[in-house]
Amino acid sequence: MSNFAFGLGVGTQSAAGDWLEVYFNAPLLNAADDLIKAVGDALGYEGGNQTIEIEESQLKALEAAFLSVGAEDQAEIVEVLEGTRQPLVVCILASDEEPQTTAEVYLKLSLLSHRLVKPHGINLTGMFGKLPNVAWTNEGAVALDELPKRQLAARAQGRVLDVHSVDKFPKMTNYVVPAGIRVGDAARIRLGAHVGEGTTVMHEGFINFNA
Amino acid sequence: MSNFAFGLGVGTQSAAGDWLEVYFNAPLLNAADDLIKAVGDALGYEGGNQTIEIEESQLKALEAAFLSVGAEDQAEIVEVLEGTRQPLVVCILASDEEPQTTAEVYLKLSLLSHRLVKPHGINLTGMFGKLPNVAWTNEGAVALDELPKRQLAARAQGRVLDVHSVDKFPKMTNYVVPAGIRVGDAARIRLGAHVGEGTTVMHEGFINFNA
Amino acid sequence: MSNFAFGLGVGTQSAAGDWLEVYFNAPLLNAADDLIKAVGDALGYEGGNQTIEIEESQLKALEAAFLSVGAEDQAEIVEVLEGTRQPLVVCILASDEEPQTTAEVYLKLSLLSHRLVKPHGINLTGMFGKLPNVAWTNEGAVALDELPKRQLAARAQGRVLDVHSVDKFPKMTNYVVPAGIRVGDAARIRLGAHVGEGTTVMHEGFINFNA
Repeated sequence: MSNFAFGLGVGTQSAAGDWLEVYFNAPLLNAADDLIKAVGDALGYEGGNQTIEIEESQLKALEAAFLSVGAEDQAEIVEVLEGTRQPLVVCILASDEEPQTTAEVYLKLSLLSHRLVKPHGINLTGMFGKLPNVAWTNEGAVALDELPKRQLAARAQGRVLDVHSVDKFPKMTNYVVPAGIRVGDAARIRLGAHVGEGTTVMHEGFINFNA
Repeated sequence: MSNFAFGLGVGTQSAAGDWLEVYFNAPLLNAADDLIKAVGDALGYEGGNQTIEIEESQLKALEAAFLSVGAEDQAEIVEVLEGTRQPLVVCILASDEEPQTTAEVYLKLSLLSHRLVKPHGINLTGMFGKLPNVAWTNEGAVALDELPKRQLAARAQGRVLDVHSVDKFPKMTNYVVPAGIRVGDAARIRLGAHVGEGTTVMHEGFINFNA
Repeated sequence: MSNFAFGLGVGTQSAAGDWLEVYFNAPLLNAADDLIKAVGDALGYEGGNQTIEIEESQLKALEAAFLSVGAEDQAEIVEVLEGTRQPLVVCILASDEEPQTTAEVYLKLSLLSHRLVKPHGINLTGMFGKLPNVAWTNEGAVALDELPKRQLAARAQGRVLDVHSVDKFPKMTNYVVPAGIRVGDAARIRLGAHVGEGTTVMHEGFINFNA
């Protein structure tokens, strides 16, 4: 069972249940066959490229699956997620086809910023259509049509909902800070940027996704 | 009773009681006569351009006034604000004269960013003198002379009071994100900017108030 | 007992106990002899340039020392810090020698941004080696090797650990906002910048440390 990529993610959905973004703590490129088989058995995966939304109640089985194949790192991620109320997703990509879901796009952008694939080394065709335009705030991703109510409610409670950007792409550093870099203003680097070790991005710089 | 603009706002005051900024969730241009009459009766408005500070205890009467004229949207804002401890204000502007208070300036800047008026289409004469220089932080607007004590207290409690900018103008997106825009770095757009639908402001761009 | 500089700081350490940064609320240049003597007696200072880590339990003695010499401002800082769980440090610099610790570098950078010394008016030789590369976040300074776990834990709890920059230097305004300035985007000014009264830094500007 060959595999292109794997990721266990925790993300944000709109009130309507649409995915706004997904955080993959430790995505895998070419995951081991036995890991995919164990996880697949636990989640009912039947092959191909799948975005599988999971419940918190499935995490114990997922942890056992990881431990059964010695994937301690992934098992540790599951442990941290146990008890969460945030939406969870598992992406299993058998091949590098065009991404079909928001989660798949985020997995692929994460592979780039984790330096697991090189710029232009991954199929992102049609990705824009899978990425919603989102308000990126100090309280996480917020759907644009929910923003005014959220801002008003925050104000009533004495807080400010601080909107950092309004964009299809989040900033890379909120997802991964690859080793050996310095970044003056993190707003300048989108998730999906591939920032080489030793790079310093001063405050005027801007690195686009997949660049 | 002709009317130029109306706004119900929630804002921030310094310890000395000076207004630092006002958030208008849904300002109105040329508000309906019956709305102004109903609100005016509830608050004792006697005409002209008035900035009326209100108490939380007056919100019920304000809600009734809005409902009496079918202004459901404004009534919903009041509902969210009920129970708040934040300072509240109602601005009623009979005409587009020079703004006389901080709240009036914020109402006019909000009209611009809500695309209710066009750049240079509103009287902002003397506005700079009505806008205090403010520290814009993750905990909201802070008066500059209170900042060092607030920063120290936050540190003692294990938090950081993050100062995003020190300016008379806040960033637009913390007040309104008009439809159909993308903004790479929201720090670049001041409240009062008029950002047309379909605009994408990349990370190098900067749009000034009233531009 | 001549003295070059003095500072009482509250800061952040990594899980391994390394200093990441230190906030000095009110550093002193050429502190009064009697202040240094009183504080030195309270803390067992024996001369030279010393970075003295102190416990919360020592704050009462420190406050008494400040009050004994009429240093009300410093005593007030101590009062705010009483009860804190954050790491505390006192820096006493007898002379302007090369900084030997992270805290000493932060004290010197703070002297610059507090306008107590002029750019190039202080010995910063070797400072880069004393400054760790840090993730600057909405929850304070985070050690880079702890970041992925902190980000995952925040996500599991429905928060976002927002990484503003990855750099040896923090932004100045989180440490001090000197009087009479405006700063469009505070990310552009590093601690250690010397920003003159009346300066307005618009959004394109960038001021480096010691400049």
